[in-house]
Amino acid sequence: MRNRVTLADVAKIAGVNPGTVSRSLNPQTENQVNKETVRKIRKIAKELGYTPNTVARGLRTRKSLTIGVVIPDLTNPIFPPLVRGVDSYLLPRGYSALIVNSDGNVDTELVLINSLMERQVDGLIIATGHGGDEMLKDFHTRGVYAVMVNRESPGVPYPTVTGDDGAGISAAIEHLAALGHTEYIHLAGPSDSSTSKIRAHTFTIECKRLGLNGKIIKTTAYSIEAGQTAMDKFLDHKPSPFTAIVAGNDLLALGAYHSLRTHGLNCPDDVSVIGFNNMPFTNDFQPPMTTVNVPHFDMGVEAARLLLSQFEDEESAPVKVTLPVSLIIRESTALKK
Amino acid sequence: MRNRVTLADVAKIAGVNPGTVSRSLNPQTENQVNKETVRKIRKIAKELGYTPNTVARGLRTRKSLTIGVVIPDLTNPIFPPLVRGVDSYLLPRGYSALIVNSDGNVDTELVLINSLMERQVDGLIIATGHGGDEMLKDFHTRGVYAVMVNRESPGVPYPTVTGDDGAGISAAIEHLAALGHTEYIHLAGPSDSSTSKIRAHTFTIECKRLGLNGKIIKTTAYSIEAGQTAMDKFLDHKPSPFTAIVAGNDLLALGAYHSLRTHGLNCPDDVSVIGFNNMPFTNDFQPPMTTVNVPHFDMGVEAARLLLSQFEDEESAPVKVTLPVSLIIRESTALKK
Repeated sequence: MRNRVTLADVAKIAGVNPGTVSRSLNPQTENQVNKETVRKIRKIAKELGYTPNTVARGLRTRKSLTIGVVIPDLTNPIFPPLVRGVDSYLLPRGYSALIVNSDGNVDTELVLINSLMERQVDGLIIATGHGGDEMLKDFHTRGVYAVMVNRESPGVPYPTVTGDDGAGISAAIEHLAALGHTEYIHLAGPSDSSTSKIRAHTFTIECKRLGLNGKIIKTTAYSIEAGQTAMDKFLDHKPSPFTAIVAGNDLLALGAYHSLRTHGLNCPDDVSVIGFNNMPFTNDFQPPMTTVNVPHFDMGVEAARLLLSQFEDEESAPVKVTLPVSLIIRESTALKK
Repeated sequence: MRNRVTLADVAKIAGVNPGTVSRSLNPQTENQVNKETVRKIRKIAKELGYTPNTVARGLRTRKSLTIGVVIPDLTNPIFPPLVRGVDSYLLPRGYSALIVNSDGNVDTELVLINSLMERQVDGLIIATGHGGDEMLKDFHTRGVYAVMVNRESPGVPYPTVTGDDGAGISAAIEHLAALGHTEYIHLAGPSDSSTSKIRAHTFTIECKRLGLNGKIIKTTAYSIEAGQTAMDKFLDHKPSPFTAIVAGNDLLALGAYHSLRTHGLNCPDDVSVIGFNNMPFTNDFQPPMTTVNVPHFDMGVEAARLLLSQFEDEESAPVKVTLPVSLIIRESTALKK
């Protein structure tokens, strides 16, 4: 078999330096070279049968230069910034993110992940973590590269990147306790997600630690509708008094806003509400929402970084990255009257 | 090894579209094409050594069962519902949507579309339409299946699905005129998008028709920041009085909210503001936003339907579907004082 044509060969024949060839053959950088030169170099590369492999060098799995990103619900505004974080790391490194949206449906998720695998993505970034994920365990055994992001998947030995859910709930409760609140509701997300479990668990622990009364209301999804429905049902039964709601996320908190309003309760005069995530638009709500900031963009960056590092160092131990969160105090929380 | 001759090659040389070739070479459908054309196409196919792929016949592109969806900005909340609409049509039909996010960058868009094509998607749904799209014209010539959605791309002969931008702006201005407003600002989106052009054009026409004073302020992007920056710049120069803002979309309108607030102006007491799209969360803003509802979910369904129908009936003429819009009156518009 004859020697493979190299970048240097193309450069030599074109009478330019190898950097110019490299830039000319990369769609992301070709605009740095004048069009006539790009055309000439492409022609020569084609005639010689040169296949650029520039970025891929040394990374054995860089076959398709695409990464599958599996999102549970694109309409939750936390995910687009996460995707942008992933993109911001992948694109300059020659990778494209192919995003799929499972819409919270496990069967759909399976179909979509299979589609991605058939399209031969080099790895997966999975934001749909849930309990009993046999498929992911199987992927791990088969050597598929992946990173879990935002939610963990118990028993799945992939690296994970999450926010510090426990610290966020603690900060929320301490803020409300300092405002004098003693009777709390936790509007909890669906219990099959790791974020829901950690947040609810921390709520219980912290209420006990600070001597507060805490009650957990379960919802069926991380959505405005689910938050509103659960709160409506609770308020319709004339519950014992409470003055603070710690919501599992911002969408549930917004659902609580709606429910309080239809029940003639004012936020924050009657009830203080805290969200979780600091998703886009929370500052524009009526009232602007006190919430826990989770760095979703950074989470995406970190997930992409961990995935690509697996391509280089396959032996790396399962990593668990927890990103710091912080309380953002706005106008949905106030002193207990 | 030389490239395999494709159906598109035969079509190009015969001067017909790929659908005609497909039908001419299929005994079951050749009677749908006139005999002279069938004879000519068979001759060309034979000369070029084209072998029709029998399994694929009729549904020539059903190879990967994946569709690429190209989104300009996932952080704009209008796009997730559009993607859900696409999914709702594709998934029950065995297709998966692979979504890419260009982040408003034309170079990135090129890279991502190439990634999708390399992953051999069966067709594209493109929401990133802009002027001078030579790549899409080239795709069309090569027989790539695609549908444009939300934005048109002038000169690109693909089917398009858009909202009725003109009717939306007319309804907005008529509503404000009925409230007594006579001095208007149009906070216009970037001028390389068809939606911006139609909305700005209709604004000018309607102001003239109704005897109103209208001024157009251009922005650099469909974002909160771009809307706020443009309005700040305008208000800093102590403009002649105005009492109504017709924004190019809801994000620009939200930027206007921010700018008015920092300039000590109240919405709607001092200035009425109308958005465009009725994106998620507009009802939760402070004040709840009057806006034009655009059916983005339906838009996604319709785009997916039109794309899949191309696989079956390749001859279909370029279709232009305009979906009806409606004004949603909330609390950001009020009687002129």
